[in-house]
Amino acid sequence: MHRALKQGCTERKNSKAKICYYCAMKKNAFYAQSGGVTSVINATACGVIEGARKNRQHINTVFAGQNGILGALQENLIDTRKESPRTIAGLRYLPGGAFGSCRYRLQKETEYQRLAAVFDAHHIGYFFYNGGGDSQDTTHKVAQYFKKVGFPITCIGIPKTIDNDLPLTDNCPGFGSVAKYVATSVREAGLDVESMYVSSTKVFILEVMGRHSGWIAASAGLAAEQPGDPPHIILFPEIPFDKAKVFQHISDTVGQYGYCVIVASEGLRDKSGTFLTDSANKDAFGHVQLGGVAPILSQYIQKKLGYKCHWAVADYLQRSARHIASRTDVEQAYAMGEYAVQMALKGQHGQMPIIRRIKGTNYRWKIDAVPIGKVANVERTLPKSYITRNGTGITASAKTYLAPLIKGEDFPPFKNGLPHYVRLKKVTVAKKLPAWDK
Amino acid sequence: MHRALKQGCTERKNSKAKICYYCAMKKNAFYAQSGGVTSVINATACGVIEGARKNRQHINTVFAGQNGILGALQENLIDTRKESPRTIAGLRYLPGGAFGSCRYRLQKETEYQRLAAVFDAHHIGYFFYNGGGDSQDTTHKVAQYFKKVGFPITCIGIPKTIDNDLPLTDNCPGFGSVAKYVATSVREAGLDVESMYVSSTKVFILEVMGRHSGWIAASAGLAAEQPGDPPHIILFPEIPFDKAKVFQHISDTVGQYGYCVIVASEGLRDKSGTFLTDSANKDAFGHVQLGGVAPILSQYIQKKLGYKCHWAVADYLQRSARHIASRTDVEQAYAMGEYAVQMALKGQHGQMPIIRRIKGTNYRWKIDAVPIGKVANVERTLPKSYITRNGTGITASAKTYLAPLIKGEDFPPFKNGLPHYVRLKKVTVAKKLPAWDK
Repeated sequence: MHRALKQGCTERKNSKAKICYYCAMKKNAFYAQSGGVTSVINATACGVIEGARKNRQHINTVFAGQNGILGALQENLIDTRKESPRTIAGLRYLPGGAFGSCRYRLQKETEYQRLAAVFDAHHIGYFFYNGGGDSQDTTHKVAQYFKKVGFPITCIGIPKTIDNDLPLTDNCPGFGSVAKYVATSVREAGLDVESMYVSSTKVFILEVMGRHSGWIAASAGLAAEQPGDPPHIILFPEIPFDKAKVFQHISDTVGQYGYCVIVASEGLRDKSGTFLTDSANKDAFGHVQLGGVAPILSQYIQKKLGYKCHWAVADYLQRSARHIASRTDVEQAYAMGEYAVQMALKGQHGQMPIIRRIKGTNYRWKIDAVPIGKVANVERTLPKSYITRNGTGITASAKTYLAPLIKGEDFPPFKNGLPHYVRLKKVTVAKKLPAWDK
Repeated sequence: MHRALKQGCTERKNSKAKICYYCAMKKNAFYAQSGGVTSVINATACGVIEGARKNRQHINTVFAGQNGILGALQENLIDTRKESPRTIAGLRYLPGGAFGSCRYRLQKETEYQRLAAVFDAHHIGYFFYNGGGDSQDTTHKVAQYFKKVGFPITCIGIPKTIDNDLPLTDNCPGFGSVAKYVATSVREAGLDVESMYVSSTKVFILEVMGRHSGWIAASAGLAAEQPGDPPHIILFPEIPFDKAKVFQHISDTVGQYGYCVIVASEGLRDKSGTFLTDSANKDAFGHVQLGGVAPILSQYIQKKLGYKCHWAVADYLQRSARHIASRTDVEQAYAMGEYAVQMALKGQHGQMPIIRRIKGTNYRWKIDAVPIGKVANVERTLPKSYITRNGTGITASAKTYLAPLIKGEDFPPFKNGLPHYVRLKKVTVAKKLPAWDK
């Protein structure tokens, strides 16, 4: 084992770069993706890696964790030096998690010790963890642990979540692109239903993600420009589902416009707080839950109101639809990665970059930093002022907030009619430690 | 009532234009959209209207049926003269059916008489009917009726269907764009699953349209470029669903690649020919059908194989996704409309334009015409040679056929981050007849 951990490796004095006191090498960086991926998380990876490459005098290379933090525990470190500048630039367009993500929560002291051993063995002096609320909780704990044991590393959290539910930041990278996908889809499917309702489908339901907060559902509201435009009804997880009231609303909408387009959050609950998907078992219709709010609602509506109903469940399509990503979102995702490198070089241990909206009529933003401790485990739900009084629409202030986040297009390159996404070599570095025995 | 019907209005001699013998007016054209809409059916409308405008010396104006053939029966005729050239040009980008479509089958003699009365009253000498198999059956019957009674009109069918199931034509306008949407979505969602499977979802199912033919499901196969690329399993309506075999295949795929992406046609049937969605009621798990193959499969897989499973149902999103339309498809849709006008002016009564693929290494196509009688009620299913021997993939010849149909992008204009689609005024002309009493 490298001696740093045992003997307290510190940076060499009189040098901006973190250079190992013992082996005189520039330190490496570790970057990992965590939690559900987004269509722009790799843009952040691109920002981190290109940012590090611009700072070669300080950072030797970036090792990416194969499958998130598991890559660190299992010593599966992807050497990004093996990827060409062109491939790294292509990360900007690649959806999914290029290096593999994971859902994994560190729980044991031995796991932290293992991280230290791996980071020590591979001269890692910078830790970048790219994820949502749970993941930033991990970053926070890792940062605290390393500080406690005096391990010479700078830990930076980088936000990412389609749910837009992190506090302090104006918005989260990943959200704008889902919002753009959902609003686009609702506008397009709405035109389809509008043209058919006289003799066919009268109600269309699009189920979107957001189990605890209605940010994604709310974004569908951007599709409507004029009164009567779809979506006519948005069902938020924040608003308890009142069957009778919603049925009346659907019936009124069909009466007024001839058809009704509904956007339903997967996290829809009844008044008792039970998820609609869970309560379906006990429903009077005797339905068994098949995991979707949309089919359940559709069944209700067809039986109760007699309207021909169609439904779609966007599921992973919404969070991987890089082909319709928001340019604003892509730019912010990239900038967060690049900025995180700057933060690391400045030694902003235990912090996370956030986006601040600059006051003014035109949308402008800048990046700031906050302690991760203030972010971890805090969930920002949709403000009440963003939901209309009837509980099924978004207000003007919601539109003002949401609109800039979906602005601009950033189409990926296309080849043979399909988005052409780079493939990484994902070469892992030679292991230096015994296998992790958990 | 205009006297044509009673007295046998014919074209004035020595004139290329159809000019009413009695009122000395150039004849109008009637255009209607029928059946399920596509993201490019309005490109065809654009071709018809712009084509007619280029032939003002022959065609007075195009009246569009409000909600398809119902517009003719109810004398709801949208005067396309009221729409600016810019709006008409914008039809090229607008998904859905701009004038309203319908699912309506003419059945009574009185309906045909009513059509004649309306067309006579509005000096309509050209009939364009834009739809799929059922709709072309209507065009065929209308053409036969008018010929029989000697009504002076030229009837042209214009193909449109996402199902790609019309005979004689190499492909159907509308299909290429769905194919592009499905292949793009599978590629993108596949990258999502690939990055998460180690600690999360292992199986992802995308349900696509195509109740009787697997053209759309097959198009997902275009997403795979290298061995192991998603989709790993395509479930065609043409191949009876063999649960044990499919489970084994899924299990093998997860064993080999770590995850499995499945594309399932909504029209999946078991060996007895029963739709999976219908048979679910009788399933050993006691599931009640909620209208989707994907959730049913997901439930099976999770219970039998224990894999975490996610599923998406694209539904109307796939056929309205103009933002990811195929340029080839858009160009063909437009060309069909324009060509139909030429056919009408040449008097090709009872015919329909089709697309012929020109032999050669590079994809080239031309338009030809066939009698609608040969098209109506004939359904072209996926050739067996397009399905791999194991029944869950597409062959090289399928790829050769499909690949050019999704080529090229034709992004709509964007405004405020969303596709900006034109809005029509849809001004109907003054009625001249008593209300239709059915």
